[in-house]
Amino acid sequence: MTSLANDTFLRALRRQPTAYTPVWLMRQAGRYLPEYNATRARAGSFLALAQNPDFATEVTLQPIDRYPLDAAILFSDILTVPDAMGLGLRFEAGEGPKFERPVRTEADVARLAVPDMDALRYVFDAVGQIRRALLRDGVQRVPLIGFSGSPWTLACYMVEGGGSDDYRTVKTMLYARPDLLHRILAVNADAVAQYLTAQIDAGAQAVMVFDSWGGVLADGAFGEFSLAYSQRVVQAIQRHPGAADVPVILFTKGGGQWLEAMADTGADALGLDWTTNLGQARARVGQRVALQGNLDPAVLFAPPAAIEREVQRLLHSFGRVDAGAGHVFNLGHGISQFTPPEHVAALVEAVHTHSRAWHAPAQG
Amino acid sequence: MTSLANDTFLRALRRQPTAYTPVWLMRQAGRYLPEYNATRARAGSFLALAQNPDFATEVTLQPIDRYPLDAAILFSDILTVPDAMGLGLRFEAGEGPKFERPVRTEADVARLAVPDMDALRYVFDAVGQIRRALLRDGVQRVPLIGFSGSPWTLACYMVEGGGSDDYRTVKTMLYARPDLLHRILAVNADAVAQYLTAQIDAGAQAVMVFDSWGGVLADGAFGEFSLAYSQRVVQAIQRHPGAADVPVILFTKGGGQWLEAMADTGADALGLDWTTNLGQARARVGQRVALQGNLDPAVLFAPPAAIEREVQRLLHSFGRVDAGAGHVFNLGHGISQFTPPEHVAALVEAVHTHSRAWHAPAQG
Repeated sequence: MTSLANDTFLRALRRQPTAYTPVWLMRQAGRYLPEYNATRARAGSFLALAQNPDFATEVTLQPIDRYPLDAAILFSDILTVPDAMGLGLRFEAGEGPKFERPVRTEADVARLAVPDMDALRYVFDAVGQIRRALLRDGVQRVPLIGFSGSPWTLACYMVEGGGSDDYRTVKTMLYARPDLLHRILAVNADAVAQYLTAQIDAGAQAVMVFDSWGGVLADGAFGEFSLAYSQRVVQAIQRHPGAADVPVILFTKGGGQWLEAMADTGADALGLDWTTNLGQARARVGQRVALQGNLDPAVLFAPPAAIEREVQRLLHSFGRVDAGAGHVFNLGHGISQFTPPEHVAALVEAVHTHSRAWHAPAQG
Repeated sequence: MTSLANDTFLRALRRQPTAYTPVWLMRQAGRYLPEYNATRARAGSFLALAQNPDFATEVTLQPIDRYPLDAAILFSDILTVPDAMGLGLRFEAGEGPKFERPVRTEADVARLAVPDMDALRYVFDAVGQIRRALLRDGVQRVPLIGFSGSPWTLACYMVEGGGSDDYRTVKTMLYARPDLLHRILAVNADAVAQYLTAQIDAGAQAVMVFDSWGGVLADGAFGEFSLAYSQRVVQAIQRHPGAADVPVILFTKGGGQWLEAMADTGADALGLDWTTNLGQARARVGQRVALQGNLDPAVLFAPPAAIEREVQRLLHSFGRVDAGAGHVFNLGHGISQFTPPEHVAALVEAVHTHSRAWHAPAQG
């Protein structure tokens, strides 16, 4: 077992005492960093960047080298699993991802199967390589997070064939042919569970399930078509030998109304977007799970003084991090490509500085 | 005072007993209707359609003639008020609305003023004309709803200069120069209040404030930058002579976490999007306000049997409409242009048929 120079992030996820609130940022290895853009230019394309363990390692480390962040997250694409299913992922200039063979008909659905994990070997290789790159004098600087899209979020892309404004195709399937969608989701849940346990076997020390599109579902549909399958993933991970100690973070963007049900999945932590009141979320579920979030990424467009003020507001909203509570500071969504890099430095410093008072033992 | 053939909608908003649950649909006069597209083709453009009282009257009546809906809503554009402020509204083919002169600098903001309501005369003329067109044998078929965008939602368009994916410009102003944004919002609140009271004077029998973009705000920002200004509008309407009896509906898309604060504005009814559990919303605020919503518009892509099932599910979620409760059935957002018109007929029939059992007096 490798020793960690900084285990604050893992301790917070386990709701153990820490000296300060750890912080990392969704999409922290991304286009707001000039060094990321330079590596991407060398790689030639986003897919070439994501599918090459050398490049993936390089960009994963970039934000860790620049800022005193408390965790690294595997650089990868959210659509690796459906790509491995043979749907034909491609990225067109100026557009989002597209699948050449979306899953829409009864025959498409019948054909769908959990992919051979060998097709995702490049991801597991990247995990191992990043773990080694994180070593400094034999000690790992910060923990490494693995991730996957949730079964529902992957299904959105698979059925729509790409991004969507209204999710018309997948929602039509949901209401008109729920049996077909359930079959897709069952395959996705098994695939995501295998994918995340293989990331853990390769060295991921925490994993996060990104239910990026759960929030577009109706109240009655979220539990049945998103959460039930995320729960299957969580439970499969927890049954996996060697994963018992690996915290699972579940993040549903737009899921603030469903936190109690999300905590019922058995996840160790819930990600929150910026519309949820952190203190109220803690009161609802914070004795059962750690909470991760939830600064509006747009705050990072404002000057450092405003960033500091908003950080203090969130720390105050969470309140004293006493026994049984855990808070990981993060944005409520991925960092924008338009963020000035020096504002991220101000954010990390503000979290580290101002959170200490909320972790100090209460005065007797 | 004109007598109403069907006052079910107004009674439900006032939480008075009704025989069934009234229903209307956001954007019910819209592109899913072939007759709407025919009128729009004659008008030549969306703005020509919206700014001509004859055309506006014609399309407002189209869904009322086709379906037994319980209310009509003024056909108009959400950006009439900033257009009257001189920002230069235009619609480009294949794109959303754009303002030629967005409000971004200190000088832009200083220049902003409540527009002369004469510039919006065409809207008030349309209201009067629609009221007359709704008469059949001297009796008004259904009530007419007036509407406006909320101060915050208008500000989003005014600062961004059009639609946005990330609201980067207006949120940067919010966090970096809140003073400028507050000044815009104060002007907008006065303008919207004057606009809605003038619609009421012209004949609108209920008004709805569409806070379409309130849900993109962070928890701490929603109250300060959206709700406080919607509340000013609600209170100005309630102080207006002749508007005391006119119910105000406040709808924040993505506002399900803030219903208690929304009810505190004094609005008579809250609109809900489809992510909110109707029964839980009722338990939280349903003794203080009526509730309007909240079917996922995507349900209308599914066959009538599925539509009927989802209608029954929502009626069951709201529960028995007993003393002090009010429910107006609606979608959780505007109807999609891709909706088959016959599915709307199935929806209206399902609401009218199945809701009667929830309104019958309880068995003794």
